[in-house]
Amino acid sequence: MQVVKTAHALSQALATQDAIAFVPTMGNLHAGHIQLVELAKTKNACVVVSIFVNPLQFGANEDLSNYPRTLDADLEKLKAAGADIVFTPSEQEMYPDFDASTHNTHQSITINLPSVANELCGAARPGHFSGMATVVLKLFNLVFFNGAKTRVAIFGKKDFQQLFIIRDMVKQLNLPIEIIAGDTRREADGLAMSSRNGYLTSAQKLEAPRLYRALGLLVDAVKQGRTDFPALETQTTQFLTQLGWVVDYISIRSAETLLPATNADLKLVVLGAARQGTTRLIDNIEFTLKPN
Amino acid sequence: MQVVKTAHALSQALATQDAIAFVPTMGNLHAGHIQLVELAKTKNACVVVSIFVNPLQFGANEDLSNYPRTLDADLEKLKAAGADIVFTPSEQEMYPDFDASTHNTHQSITINLPSVANELCGAARPGHFSGMATVVLKLFNLVFFNGAKTRVAIFGKKDFQQLFIIRDMVKQLNLPIEIIAGDTRREADGLAMSSRNGYLTSAQKLEAPRLYRALGLLVDAVKQGRTDFPALETQTTQFLTQLGWVVDYISIRSAETLLPATNADLKLVVLGAARQGTTRLIDNIEFTLKPN
Repeated sequence: MQVVKTAHALSQALATQDAIAFVPTMGNLHAGHIQLVELAKTKNACVVVSIFVNPLQFGANEDLSNYPRTLDADLEKLKAAGADIVFTPSEQEMYPDFDASTHNTHQSITINLPSVANELCGAARPGHFSGMATVVLKLFNLVFFNGAKTRVAIFGKKDFQQLFIIRDMVKQLNLPIEIIAGDTRREADGLAMSSRNGYLTSAQKLEAPRLYRALGLLVDAVKQGRTDFPALETQTTQFLTQLGWVVDYISIRSAETLLPATNADLKLVVLGAARQGTTRLIDNIEFTLKPN
Repeated sequence: MQVVKTAHALSQALATQDAIAFVPTMGNLHAGHIQLVELAKTKNACVVVSIFVNPLQFGANEDLSNYPRTLDADLEKLKAAGADIVFTPSEQEMYPDFDASTHNTHQSITINLPSVANELCGAARPGHFSGMATVVLKLFNLVFFNGAKTRVAIFGKKDFQQLFIIRDMVKQLNLPIEIIAGDTRREADGLAMSSRNGYLTSAQKLEAPRLYRALGLLVDAVKQGRTDFPALETQTTQFLTQLGWVVDYISIRSAETLLPATNADLKLVVLGAARQGTTRLIDNIEFTLKPN
């Protein structure tokens, strides 16, 4: 496994690769990430993993400085999983005008996204998805634009809205990259694995799986024929709020457009974001209704 | 010479090319365009020319519908110049959700540019440079993202601000594409060649070279030591206005940052945009001062 820190070294390492499978991450890797790397391994390609905590996608009051950075442990896990190349750029490498004291990236050319980027997680995190999309486009250009003819990028379904936006960007910007979605890896109690789970106290961690279970009850209700989606969303929000959660949103959406679900939609997704203390957890469940 | 209309056919035509030199155009080709194609021919590469009048970079009150479309003549000129592949996509091909009745592209993922895109030509044409950058990025992805290892794109210096923005985008988005600038081709009287010259009446065409000559006088004044740039700009604006021009801007800028020039700048550019009747002409002159 080769670890490269610069765009130039990455370009050299990839110059002879005809097939690349890429897993972008922010590090602090858990079994969910490793599952994505294992998925990449099935593609008969050079498996490239990036580790970069992207300042451009963190808001001013978010956890950029505290975001867990565990590079040595991450590299061990990636080696064990069979990654071929790990790209660990500095902030200055990704953003040449980066200002370390203010965390200002000075990235003035960014991706402007459709309004769906301002809903759900985007409502609570203004600019988050634009910053995410911008760094993903930069990483795609660095990883795939070296002459490879097979280009696969892998994203987890846990970040459903992120996955949706990436797929849309790839289509709208004519990027010849196949996007593959990896299933959400869960703890035995159902909690979706996330780097931010490490912020939870042990009491919060006991309560945390409730978000997934509440979404599951919502799915059951819709599958059983309930079509009063706003009422169902409010009900789930109230349920979680009574148990001490601070709910950002609970939403039933079309899995194809990410617009609020209508009775005509068959491919659906329920999504939720809620806080335990200061820790914001997200989860979602995709499901399909049978046509009447 | 192969003419392809779809992204898929383009991808197939380019799949075996190791080196590509690309000249994006909006058609209605004149000797200035052909000079760019000849420059591309010197690169020992497959020369790809695109012809696409991009709705996304035209404002609501601009000349999209009237923009001259002369495909047959263009193809003849390109064949004579030795182009290898000409890409002539439809609006639907570039923008799958294109609405022909409203010219709405429904391209909801676009390039967000720094504030320099709102100055000079951008002040009179809101959204123009974002639309231009977006389609250029899409074309780059379609043309260069097929596995080629040598990637050159050629733009004319007549559209100095456009060239500046493209260079900035390539750098900020980590696109491994070499941008080469082609000199402005001029008529014998100095008028910069442009598709929009075809809109001029014969009387306007006689007056049109005055813009270039006025910029030349401005350059002379700065070279002779004048440092009162705003006064010089106003003087040139008044001079042209008295002769019946409607001046959008006359501006002395750093050629490196495109910010208003200061006395410390040595690499400069004077740029102007002014109308003869309803026809908007632009021109510029780059020059270098000797250090004191």
